[in-house]
Amino acid sequence: MMGGDLGVDATVPGLSLYVNNHDCRDVSFELFGNKSIIEQHIKSQNCTIHDTGKNVISASEKPAKALKIGHGTSMFEAISWVAQGNADAVVSSGNTGAYMAFSKILIGAIDGIERPAIVSILPNILNSTVMLDLGANTDCPPTKLLQFAIMGKAVSQVLQQVKNPKIGLLNIGTERTKGTDLLEEAYVLMEKSENLNFIGFVEGTDITKGTADVIVTDGFTGNVSLKTMEGTIRYIAHTLKTGFSSSLMSKIGYLFCRNAVKTLKNAIDPRNHNGAPLVGLKKIAIKSHGNSDAVGFANAISVAVTLAKSGFIDDISKMIAEIEKGNSDENKNN
Amino acid sequence: MMGGDLGVDATVPGLSLYVNNHDCRDVSFELFGNKSIIEQHIKSQNCTIHDTGKNVISASEKPAKALKIGHGTSMFEAISWVAQGNADAVVSSGNTGAYMAFSKILIGAIDGIERPAIVSILPNILNSTVMLDLGANTDCPPTKLLQFAIMGKAVSQVLQQVKNPKIGLLNIGTERTKGTDLLEEAYVLMEKSENLNFIGFVEGTDITKGTADVIVTDGFTGNVSLKTMEGTIRYIAHTLKTGFSSSLMSKIGYLFCRNAVKTLKNAIDPRNHNGAPLVGLKKIAIKSHGNSDAVGFANAISVAVTLAKSGFIDDISKMIAEIEKGNSDENKNN
Repeated sequence: MMGGDLGVDATVPGLSLYVNNHDCRDVSFELFGNKSIIEQHIKSQNCTIHDTGKNVISASEKPAKALKIGHGTSMFEAISWVAQGNADAVVSSGNTGAYMAFSKILIGAIDGIERPAIVSILPNILNSTVMLDLGANTDCPPTKLLQFAIMGKAVSQVLQQVKNPKIGLLNIGTERTKGTDLLEEAYVLMEKSENLNFIGFVEGTDITKGTADVIVTDGFTGNVSLKTMEGTIRYIAHTLKTGFSSSLMSKIGYLFCRNAVKTLKNAIDPRNHNGAPLVGLKKIAIKSHGNSDAVGFANAISVAVTLAKSGFIDDISKMIAEIEKGNSDENKNN
Repeated sequence: MMGGDLGVDATVPGLSLYVNNHDCRDVSFELFGNKSIIEQHIKSQNCTIHDTGKNVISASEKPAKALKIGHGTSMFEAISWVAQGNADAVVSSGNTGAYMAFSKILIGAIDGIERPAIVSILPNILNSTVMLDLGANTDCPPTKLLQFAIMGKAVSQVLQQVKNPKIGLLNIGTERTKGTDLLEEAYVLMEKSENLNFIGFVEGTDITKGTADVIVTDGFTGNVSLKTMEGTIRYIAHTLKTGFSSSLMSKIGYLFCRNAVKTLKNAIDPRNHNGAPLVGLKKIAIKSHGNSDAVGFANAISVAVTLAKSGFIDDISKMIAEIEKGNSDENKNN
């Protein structure tokens, strides 16, 4: 409850917003943070507060340091609670590096997965695109990219309700000859995989075009691409705003087409896409954006509940195990 | 004159547009292509047509094949003409791979530069951002990134008129500890370089924020980032258009605020940013986007003329030579 730029000012009203707008008869919330602050505002009956006092991980703490001083903080205790099987999912707007480090150590990665990936659901012209990794893994050999494809498939099936999602591999061109040797190897692995509906290489323009349901890339490229998109949206919003307030005519016009602008705002509002699953863990962990407000936090809770109610973790574990088995059979045959 | 999706339908009116809007007393144009088609439409006195008949490099030709069959084509002959010192700059909307291959072989790279970079000038909230590489070099060791910084600086000085441009290195966070070892090495090289106003790591959001005048990255990341931006702009344009035509109110509103939308359109119109210099060659070569129309092609000509009138190539050559000298001195001392 203490994470993110706004802390309880976002998480408390975010939780209320979620509870008011969803049927929560089969959901309960375990809140970790400063009890004296939280209990003033929380009235919902299906909430239990776990007092962690003033112990928090600051936004600027390095993961290594966080691991040393983490015990007793709201983030650490919330993740421990889930790791011990007392809850099905954890949500936090706190320090991403610490969140990833705690989750990996306390919850652990699914067998065969080295390091979880950060997954985001981005808007596109047709619907939405599941994209991963968005920053957790800067170094991605082909086998890791194959795992991302499987993880992305499972996310798409649950959150986009797509039965056999189209998987694309991000490159600098769609032709088979484009890109690096590493991507060519990943291409071969994905093409060979019977579980995947692999559609080949896709480009940066395909993210918002809806060419693929899932786009796979390494964490460096994914992070730059996601932030380029965020920056472009802010730039356009700024230019539009300047334009609308540039003359009386424009101001009047704005009043008439407010709804059109609202549609755009909703479509591109990052709060409506908030809640990035850290996929590859044995439990569900959702990262809410550090600057998210109540609306964004409520959305992150919604992602957590949806994933927790699905057979998502089992599905991923089975598919990863099949691939691992395939690889070890192949090694025996060689 | 034959390159791009529209061929002469873009290049001929594009040239006319440029000539009509600029003082061309000290500029002349050497046009390479099918004379019988071009001469029907070109009336300008400072144009000479070099007939290359129907010999063209198709958009889908691989660079290796293009090199074999290139002789006599409009693209090859235009680049040869510049390479031989008969003209100062070449502009083409044709096949990028072939253009790069011909330019490297015929014109040659500046001493110390392995492979030219593709540079683009992107809009930002304050002004514009020079970004490179956008796809020519997928594999970029730290020394290459340092060269890109120098090349970007020279482009910024001429095209943005910035005396001491701020140089940023694209990463997944601004903190010094973020990113790969390769980027850390490049950081050290740039920081050490007395010629550069290096401001450190920048993120994807900084491209449109105007944090830096020049943003340096490898060709893989740059290409994905540029295309993500293009895709995001198309997505927003689509959403806005749908919104504006969704109701009579919105349609009326649109009439009032057409100017505001026009401002946005102009700001993000890729035609207004068309003309990507291939930097690192001994002559000026400008790549116009394959799908550019007359407006875009005229803009690419304008970039070519501006660079040709500057001391751009000499400046880059000197700065690269200084660094090479520094490196070899350092090697001697070690």
